[in-house]
Amino acid sequence: MPVFLDTRATDFETAFAALLGAKREDSPDVDAVVAGIIADVRARGDAAVVELTEKFDRMRLTADKLAFSGAEIDEIVARVAPEDRAALELAAERIRAYHVRQMPEDAEWTDPDGATLGWRWSPVSAAGLYVPGGLASYPSSLLMNAVPAKVAGVERLAVAVPTPDGQVNPLVLLAAKLSGVDEVYRIGGAQAIAALAYGTQTIAPVDKITGPGNAYVAVAKRRVFGKVGIDMIAGPSEILVIADADNDPDWIALDLLSQAEHDESAQSILITDDAAFGRAVAAAVDRRLETLERRAIAGASWRDFGAIINVRDLGEAADLSNRIAPEHLELCVADPHALSRKTVHAGAIFLGPYTPEAVGDYVGGPNHVLPTARSARFSSGLSVMDFLKRTTLAQMTPAALAAIGPAAERLANSESLEAHGLSVRARLDRLNG
Amino acid sequence: MPVFLDTRATDFETAFAALLGAKREDSPDVDAVVAGIIADVRARGDAAVVELTEKFDRMRLTADKLAFSGAEIDEIVARVAPEDRAALELAAERIRAYHVRQMPEDAEWTDPDGATLGWRWSPVSAAGLYVPGGLASYPSSLLMNAVPAKVAGVERLAVAVPTPDGQVNPLVLLAAKLSGVDEVYRIGGAQAIAALAYGTQTIAPVDKITGPGNAYVAVAKRRVFGKVGIDMIAGPSEILVIADADNDPDWIALDLLSQAEHDESAQSILITDDAAFGRAVAAAVDRRLETLERRAIAGASWRDFGAIINVRDLGEAADLSNRIAPEHLELCVADPHALSRKTVHAGAIFLGPYTPEAVGDYVGGPNHVLPTARSARFSSGLSVMDFLKRTTLAQMTPAALAAIGPAAERLANSESLEAHGLSVRARLDRLNG
Repeated sequence: MPVFLDTRATDFETAFAALLGAKREDSPDVDAVVAGIIADVRARGDAAVVELTEKFDRMRLTADKLAFSGAEIDEIVARVAPEDRAALELAAERIRAYHVRQMPEDAEWTDPDGATLGWRWSPVSAAGLYVPGGLASYPSSLLMNAVPAKVAGVERLAVAVPTPDGQVNPLVLLAAKLSGVDEVYRIGGAQAIAALAYGTQTIAPVDKITGPGNAYVAVAKRRVFGKVGIDMIAGPSEILVIADADNDPDWIALDLLSQAEHDESAQSILITDDAAFGRAVAAAVDRRLETLERRAIAGASWRDFGAIINVRDLGEAADLSNRIAPEHLELCVADPHALSRKTVHAGAIFLGPYTPEAVGDYVGGPNHVLPTARSARFSSGLSVMDFLKRTTLAQMTPAALAAIGPAAERLANSESLEAHGLSVRARLDRLNG
Repeated sequence: MPVFLDTRATDFETAFAALLGAKREDSPDVDAVVAGIIADVRARGDAAVVELTEKFDRMRLTADKLAFSGAEIDEIVARVAPEDRAALELAAERIRAYHVRQMPEDAEWTDPDGATLGWRWSPVSAAGLYVPGGLASYPSSLLMNAVPAKVAGVERLAVAVPTPDGQVNPLVLLAAKLSGVDEVYRIGGAQAIAALAYGTQTIAPVDKITGPGNAYVAVAKRRVFGKVGIDMIAGPSEILVIADADNDPDWIALDLLSQAEHDESAQSILITDDAAFGRAVAAAVDRRLETLERRAIAGASWRDFGAIINVRDLGEAADLSNRIAPEHLELCVADPHALSRKTVHAGAIFLGPYTPEAVGDYVGGPNHVLPTARSARFSSGLSVMDFLKRTTLAQMTPAALAAIGPAAERLANSESLEAHGLSVRARLDRLNG
């Protein structure tokens, strides 16, 4: 049973704080192991990667076989069913169309003092994308990372995807092809992250690494951060659904379960202004759990972290939503647009009853890599911005320097930075002399 | 003496790689101490902060004295000389005018399938800004962090600035006033970061923490990352000047020294296509070092990390610049604009001989918080974006779901996520039935 809360109850604040503070992740401590793997790859390059791949993935490779060849990719991709290919192509197109609109503009202007100012965006030169192997080897995740990188203009995009016992998901390779990935390596774990960050004899280093992974991958990404850029470290998935009584309880139940089935640590929360509707959704979840393939996982998530919160009105729902700052937020209410303007801390909002969150996971267009664990209070989902950086520009004319330089000199001296002041003063003296 | 390199030399690549790889930071290992301080502040709140402030800053406070009162601020700010106030006001205005232009736009559109898509930006609700005490208590840094936060719309902006032995820089408090800071606490170190991240009885927690600090502050920021957002962890400052022979060697020498005087670990590099000019700059640096107030620091930085690189032409200079990915890049050449289009990996570019980097530190307008240690390959300087986050929006009509829903269902099933597929299928069945 999930927890039932009611904002009218006297102990609500305590119970809600407990829900917000619940520890949902149980990461094993793999820091020492990962440090050793990274040091080994830095010291021995390909030889270390080959050995570690044999050890962890039971794959005997040689340095020249770390990358899939174009012919290998074509052969494997040919196995994809036409319907799957069509679905993946639709997804890639829609994701591309959405992300193209995110491209920011350069700017340059001259201000009243005669200073020309501005900025210019440029892509990261080379990016690495990690894709998990085995069960969680999702072609959709590859698209969500690779398409924004290529839209941003990343010249070289390298994918690392482990192939334990030789297993590879043909859809992952098709997704790589559709999104313009340049290199695909059959390596995984901390050794893949180390190889991408520091390079080996056959793998050139990249500037930024993105993509999900297990505890080893997450720790390795944290460790190479600074040497390269990384995206966020994702926690377990979450959904908050705000729904009134004018919804089909079964639809809402399925939406809650579509997060719960990801992971026993996932969290699904329903906020409703109708207690009877809340109970109907709970009953629908139980019915669906009887037959769901991943009922063990989804059932554990719902039992341990699920919640149904009864509120007085939608204003209260918005306040609670902002305190939860959910990764995914579904608004199934009469006026979802009005409510969405109040729910400002959320990774992605899905409006109305015909926008189940699962549509957004695949074909909606917006990115499905989103901030978890309340970090939507201060961070955003993946976007083309993650593969761009901004260089600021400034040019003073002699007149502009004459106008604003003395203030710079004064502030430099107040901060006891004499050379700063002198670098301005030397020019001002020439202008005055 | 700095190192002299020449791209024509046979050992250039080795020497340049050594320059790029030089270890410039020597951070003491304070991780255990910082972990203890954070745990203490989380457990005991104000009492811990008061004790630690007495220990580290030799200041006896009580919980109700952690914050400066408005009257205290007014009294201290009244001591600022009118010329300093005018300079700081000019800086604040110019920084504001630049950053206002960075505000990104919301978007919403309906695509050919009938899906309404978009995104909305919203500010972080509460931000904390760390300002070092003592010698490196820079009012300019406060402006560079606080102004973008307020431009972004941050509602509550709290500053922590330690006041060792009661010392406070009146210009820092004036900068706080000018930029609209809401709360100023006279606390510092890891205890200030912990208080801002987790809150105490008198200090409400924030969502994001920015600003420079010593090793304790840097480690504390890394440790609270996830609970709150943080900005980059800044390394020692760097400048790269690309200059041809048509420059005054003394101006370029002062520009190199204005970085070197920050820190013994700072790095100043000159690239020139004229070896004689390079030698003239080196001689000018030596002359200026004879009298510079901070000659001990600047001299050590120039001796240990300074470099003058002689190149065949400016194309080579651009390539090297991109490999260095400098924090600050000055282009003192005949056509700086043309060259700036090739030097794409840089935090900030200063064009032409009348734009010494020091102008950018104070009054240029662009931010002076910039990526160090080659991270301009993948990251940008501080901006209003650091205080905003983006929520993506999607709304399907029944027709849009009918058009793209089947592809989502197909991909969900290919990823063995049955509930994802069912949440789409349940709606499609209603539409079809």
